[in-house]
Amino acid sequence: MLWFVGLGVSGRISTDVADVLGSSDHVYLEQFTSPVGEHTVSAIQEITKGRLSVAKRWQVEDGSEILKNAKDGRVALVSYGDPMIATTHAELMTRAVSEGIRTHMIHGASAVTATVGECGMHYYKVGRVATIMNDAKSVGTPYYVIHRNLVEGNHTVLLLEYNHEEGFFLGPGDALALLVGEEAEQRRNVIRPDTFAVVASRVGTPEAAITGGQISHLAERDFGGPPHSIIIPGRMHFTESDALRAVADCIDEPLDNSRSAEKVSVQMIKKYAPMIRKAISDAEPYRASAGAALVLENAECYMQDAMRFLEQGKDDLAVLSIGYADGLLDALRMVRDAESEGGAA
Amino acid sequence: MLWFVGLGVSGRISTDVADVLGSSDHVYLEQFTSPVGEHTVSAIQEITKGRLSVAKRWQVEDGSEILKNAKDGRVALVSYGDPMIATTHAELMTRAVSEGIRTHMIHGASAVTATVGECGMHYYKVGRVATIMNDAKSVGTPYYVIHRNLVEGNHTVLLLEYNHEEGFFLGPGDALALLVGEEAEQRRNVIRPDTFAVVASRVGTPEAAITGGQISHLAERDFGGPPHSIIIPGRMHFTESDALRAVADCIDEPLDNSRSAEKVSVQMIKKYAPMIRKAISDAEPYRASAGAALVLENAECYMQDAMRFLEQGKDDLAVLSIGYADGLLDALRMVRDAESEGGAA
Repeated sequence: MLWFVGLGVSGRISTDVADVLGSSDHVYLEQFTSPVGEHTVSAIQEITKGRLSVAKRWQVEDGSEILKNAKDGRVALVSYGDPMIATTHAELMTRAVSEGIRTHMIHGASAVTATVGECGMHYYKVGRVATIMNDAKSVGTPYYVIHRNLVEGNHTVLLLEYNHEEGFFLGPGDALALLVGEEAEQRRNVIRPDTFAVVASRVGTPEAAITGGQISHLAERDFGGPPHSIIIPGRMHFTESDALRAVADCIDEPLDNSRSAEKVSVQMIKKYAPMIRKAISDAEPYRASAGAALVLENAECYMQDAMRFLEQGKDDLAVLSIGYADGLLDALRMVRDAESEGGAA
Repeated sequence: MLWFVGLGVSGRISTDVADVLGSSDHVYLEQFTSPVGEHTVSAIQEITKGRLSVAKRWQVEDGSEILKNAKDGRVALVSYGDPMIATTHAELMTRAVSEGIRTHMIHGASAVTATVGECGMHYYKVGRVATIMNDAKSVGTPYYVIHRNLVEGNHTVLLLEYNHEEGFFLGPGDALALLVGEEAEQRRNVIRPDTFAVVASRVGTPEAAITGGQISHLAERDFGGPPHSIIIPGRMHFTESDALRAVADCIDEPLDNSRSAEKVSVQMIKKYAPMIRKAISDAEPYRASAGAALVLENAECYMQDAMRFLEQGKDDLAVLSIGYADGLLDALRMVRDAESEGGAA
């Protein structure tokens, strides 16, 4: 039998958890997804006596020892938060079930829901979650996730790397610096010095702290010990800004980051619309020709369509229409230029 | 003092929760976001003796009684899951803090993380969460959320309406029928009879059940009592399909729903590309004219650009290019037609 036991975020051992740990033959504590406080570790040691081992990442990924023990006896794998947020745990569960081992679960409060809740932000506006690792080459994914979320107006919860074996955790300031570095590479206007972020530290414990501010100001802060997570807010309802002002230590006024994350399609229309208006006006002298008049008339209509589609949120149709109008006008110019060259020849 | 107390999904009362409830002057139990089992209600009644009231939705939204009591004494507001998933609770917290009332929180496991975990799906691929209410007019939002999530390959967690006062809960079959109805209206190819969905019932309790299958097959099932939630999977990693086969009662093979959710931009290119190829081939006889030759050459180039941009994931540029190519060719045709009419006149 294999129990997946989530400790939640508070670090306190519930009677449920104590019962399962007390009656298990082997208890594995994993701290590679997030640290577990010293008090909690001591409490678990006391309950389990000599039956507690530390499960390193490779042991959970490999799984053979844990599954072997779970075949013959009662095994508990204990972790911070809600256990199945970690993909490695979910995969171990699948293997256990496939090998005929009975599995059970004690769900704990996850850092993801707890962090959003503590900040008073609306959970139904949270998009994909991402993890930032201390490796510039891997920051592309969280950067992409933030971008997609911002375009949709969604909030992004960022979990930060923790390496128990090396005693390393990625500080919020360093995590934000990695995002700033990725912005310098990708230049999608996702992360700017004034991007508003919220750093939630040690959520659910008496040492919890929530700090909001522009990235450039947050970078200078010391946020103390882990765990930390970061929220990059998307479109903010006024009740969410109010909540942040009330519950967080705000260095700056809460800011709607989705303002600056314009869809590429909107950027395109804004760029092309004035060019097309000018091309139509430049072509006025040629309206005497029936063909040119027809083309200009169509270009005007499609230009208007593009603006209307954009307002209706039909971005793809807007881009298609503006491209079409541009094509119409350019063809007219090409034919005219070729003819005048031909005429001059 | 105001405590927000989350019961998690198991229905068991932890010592932490019991301590807070036992020492509170007023305890409010809200069941409008999700039902709390009878056993749990009895246990809370026993702990709180005569100090338990039921908090109706309007009482939490209005908040005046709860806040008044919290100013003078210790008040606990108890709910299923993690308390701050409900926007009403978050707003009450902000008001309490603004009025100088100290707030505390006991986080519980949320149905959102627990459901995804029990199904063995990867949490970092979960997009925005939505709630389905028993009202066809309000299904547009969850339908839109599913669409956006599928386009990005993300999973969608759907929570279902529960109305404690009326003893009503929206059954998974009815919720899926509402989505099918919305598809008939919107026709974005988001929900089809063979869309694969997962129904998770009573997660975290001994009566938990997980059923996977195509919507048309799930619609015929009786899933028993609440709470229920539904996952519409997006792109599935093979470890996720394996997990579903292992932990769920699968009526059908797990299916990748993101296959059918093509972006509008991709649909456009697929529609326009053959039309443009044909227009280029039809215009071949006119290549003798220098103007027409230049336009045709450009149309070919932009057509190739569109295909390349699409492969690179630059959908907006692909749509702009294909629109431009279409405009070039149509202008050529318009000028030609006008001239030939003019010639005939």
